[in-house]
Amino acid sequence: MVQYKLHYFNGRGRAEVIRLIFVAAGVEFEDIRISREEWPTIKSSMPLGQMPVLEVDGVKLCQSGAISRYLANQYGLSGKSEMEKYWVDAFREAMEDIGKKFPFSEKDEEKKAELKKQFFEETGPDGLKQLEKLYREYNDGASFLVGEELTVADLTFISFADFLKALKEDIFDCVPDLVALDRRLREIPNIKAWIERRPQSEF
Amino acid sequence: MVQYKLHYFNGRGRAEVIRLIFVAAGVEFEDIRISREEWPTIKSSMPLGQMPVLEVDGVKLCQSGAISRYLANQYGLSGKSEMEKYWVDAFREAMEDIGKKFPFSEKDEEKKAELKKQFFEETGPDGLKQLEKLYREYNDGASFLVGEELTVADLTFISFADFLKALKEDIFDCVPDLVALDRRLREIPNIKAWIERRPQSEF
Repeated sequence: MVQYKLHYFNGRGRAEVIRLIFVAAGVEFEDIRISREEWPTIKSSMPLGQMPVLEVDGVKLCQSGAISRYLANQYGLSGKSEMEKYWVDAFREAMEDIGKKFPFSEKDEEKKAELKKQFFEETGPDGLKQLEKLYREYNDGASFLVGEELTVADLTFISFADFLKALKEDIFDCVPDLVALDRRLREIPNIKAWIERRPQSEF
Repeated sequence: MVQYKLHYFNGRGRAEVIRLIFVAAGVEFEDIRISREEWPTIKSSMPLGQMPVLEVDGVKLCQSGAISRYLANQYGLSGKSEMEKYWVDAFREAMEDIGKKFPFSEKDEEKKAELKKQFFEETGPDGLKQLEKLYREYNDGASFLVGEELTVADLTFISFADFLKALKEDIFDCVPDLVALDRRLREIPNIKAWIERRPQSEF
């Protein structure tokens, strides 16, 4: 059996989709959480000096999107046909685009407050409405974002919803079909159990 | 035969990797270039209101990364094994990360000039050195970024190099193995001919 060790901070962040793949597939992994204090001493041992890093039988893989795509292929979570695979990727990229609009790296506090307001009132809800529209038009509000079975697009959606709701709890109020999707996905037994037992963290 | 129509502005930008896949695979496509004046009247007919959009026998696909991954799968440019596929994705994501550090969306001119300087002197070259290190360690400076054949990682690299060199011509001076890779890739006959005949554009 392949031995997986996941290295990341004590947070959901860019590692949670990877964890959710293991959880959904029922595959064991070691969930190593590095403190901010330890990180500087470990950084140089990680490819590109970043985390998450997934060790696969001792080989260190970096880049969260590439890791989750690799694992999704291993565990049948990438979509059934070439066209489903495309849609899985397209939904992932659309969520990434919305997330990117949040002003994480803005250092000027006043400017940041203004950009956050703009995100919460305009770009965030607008992006969510576009995402919901794509879901309705493409998959007619089906049980999953793509096709008729769980894919990594849904797992990415859970992590994306966690991220946005931590910033503003009611940000999904304008997109009822996405709220319903989120609720359904969180009722999947493996996922539900993981959300209940995972370590609490700020991000 | 599948009919492909690519819709984008008259620029390389987020469409060039898609064009390079068609070129490398020797597949015909209609290269539709929309002017800034036409765009507002067309925007609402495009999924997510964005371009590039690829029409595949009349079905409109959005999100450049998802489109290029789909096409790369069709034309055998995604890597031979699951592990090669992972590396193709990882290199793509690493280049995306470097590009993201350029302050495109900064509106304050003074701040932008400062952030550009920082990108050209620090974050840009640092990112390129890390990328070169990954290439050396993983593929030992082989003819291609991943494995022994051309993949979409190489095509992404060509587009990435075009983008960075348009910002600062000598930005690759610090990474000789990447300069050599870039030169080799541009000598591939189909690619060389495309670079010579493609429309000139600012971005």
